[in-house]
Amino acid sequence: MDQREQVTIYEVGPRDGLQFESQFFPTDRKIELINLLSASGLKKIEATSFVHPKAVPQLRDAAEVMARIDKQAGVTYSVLVPNLKGCQAALASRADEFTLFVSASPTHNRKNVGMSIADSLAGFPEIARLASEAGKSLRGYVITAFGCPYEGAVSLDNVRRIMEVYARLGVREASLGDTTGMANPPQVQRLVAELRRGFPEVNLAAHFHDSRGTGLVNTYAAFAAGVRVFDSSIGGLGGCPFAKGAAGNVPTEDTVNLCEEMGLDTGVDFDKLLQAAALVREVLGRELASGTSRVGRPRWSPGGQGESHCLPA
Amino acid sequence: MDQREQVTIYEVGPRDGLQFESQFFPTDRKIELINLLSASGLKKIEATSFVHPKAVPQLRDAAEVMARIDKQAGVTYSVLVPNLKGCQAALASRADEFTLFVSASPTHNRKNVGMSIADSLAGFPEIARLASEAGKSLRGYVITAFGCPYEGAVSLDNVRRIMEVYARLGVREASLGDTTGMANPPQVQRLVAELRRGFPEVNLAAHFHDSRGTGLVNTYAAFAAGVRVFDSSIGGLGGCPFAKGAAGNVPTEDTVNLCEEMGLDTGVDFDKLLQAAALVREVLGRELASGTSRVGRPRWSPGGQGESHCLPA
Repeated sequence: MDQREQVTIYEVGPRDGLQFESQFFPTDRKIELINLLSASGLKKIEATSFVHPKAVPQLRDAAEVMARIDKQAGVTYSVLVPNLKGCQAALASRADEFTLFVSASPTHNRKNVGMSIADSLAGFPEIARLASEAGKSLRGYVITAFGCPYEGAVSLDNVRRIMEVYARLGVREASLGDTTGMANPPQVQRLVAELRRGFPEVNLAAHFHDSRGTGLVNTYAAFAAGVRVFDSSIGGLGGCPFAKGAAGNVPTEDTVNLCEEMGLDTGVDFDKLLQAAALVREVLGRELASGTSRVGRPRWSPGGQGESHCLPA
Repeated sequence: MDQREQVTIYEVGPRDGLQFESQFFPTDRKIELINLLSASGLKKIEATSFVHPKAVPQLRDAAEVMARIDKQAGVTYSVLVPNLKGCQAALASRADEFTLFVSASPTHNRKNVGMSIADSLAGFPEIARLASEAGKSLRGYVITAFGCPYEGAVSLDNVRRIMEVYARLGVREASLGDTTGMANPPQVQRLVAELRRGFPEVNLAAHFHDSRGTGLVNTYAAFAAGVRVFDSSIGGLGGCPFAKGAAGNVPTEDTVNLCEEMGLDTGVDFDKLLQAAALVREVLGRELASGTSRVGRPRWSPGGQGESHCLPA
């Protein structure tokens, strides 16, 4: 029996990763991608977003995607729910979990969804009630939790206020978003320690973008502070239209490799994960941000042949 | 007065970074690069290598580079010295420090320099004697200290054996090389702890390549284990001809940013460092691997305006 400590990789590629890709990722390929991701052993996948198709045309096929994927037992399929209208659409889908979001920075929240933090929070109870009635679990993002590209430092009080609402509404897992890659390890450890103390009933996840190469070091810092759920995107897909040059999420392949090399159990089959990466590379027609998709895992990895386990050049 | 803890960034771009670039980096631009690097506040620069020009044609201009750079007071200019012949050439130059190297993996050492570890070590005393007579300090690399792409795990005994020779010869600083990006944080912490106990008289440096995105997380782990000298290359230049798909060194810009964000004092002016990155990008004509050269430092950075402090797109 595997005695290693387990960590959960929460895959955000099909949603956060694809949402602002300029080129439409065809619906059939999205479905294929999600099926490859679930086949690799990932247990949590954010599959799409029920946002207005004009706001995010890339994900206009949310209903069809959710209708046609091969849902696997034991895998939680989450969808982003921006408002009541999105919630109604999500309720009509086969999603297992609804994901709420709000920025800790007032300016970023206004640019992102055109309203104040208070107005965003005011919309959550009704969504939570409907989700609960339908037996869906809830996840919540705290966007720009580690800093805002407009405001700089964000207020810890704002983060706490959001966490209080999430806790009250029964949000099972809150993900701290480093939306434009501004976080650093001591800051991650301080915020995680503070929130674990203040909100022991909410499971914390960490969501790092890799704009400054700090995705994995912050993942490691979050782990050291007690976080056991890490958001990542296949191939390092992702970005943010509201921050110049912002890079994608930390790549799933590199996150799985780091965790496994550290002796943690992700439950993910790396070679199967590479099949999902290969599909992304083929559809987008460009090299991926993930190092391990190019060079494979280190040679001594348990069960792996190492350097040969990578995508063909 | 700045009360922050100081760390030293050891710049390897002009040597490790450029050595296997396919396109010749013109001598004038190398000199300009080294001058920009020293002007940024970097105190240690590995400027070139006195290796045979057929082995590394890119650095065939070592003597001219060392003759023509503007040497700054307080900056240590190191050169790689592969053998006695290289040592003679280095002695005729204005280098302040000679850098020795040997792999902890027998296979890698044979592929790299065509001899056994023992034969490499046997050549060091004479070089050390000549360096000492000439008043040059010594640095030593332990290559593939965290794993070998051919052999997998390397023997701790081999690492110790190399360190013993370095200690006996008065090598001031030994740098642990993660040549193909195989290291992970717990491994880094174990090896550093072991070697600090065993060789307290040798200052340890950490030298990570970023093949799997782990350069900064291993830098952080090395810092936590007590290392205060970090090798990095401007723009993330570098690679290894003996390892398929191996990526460059961890980028200097991203390393400086991480350290400064963590509250450490690198002594480096980030905007001036970007001038060196801009030169590399211009000469090579391709995008750099460093995230901060594209998006700048986070907005709240002391003394910085953040997102605008990056190279123009």
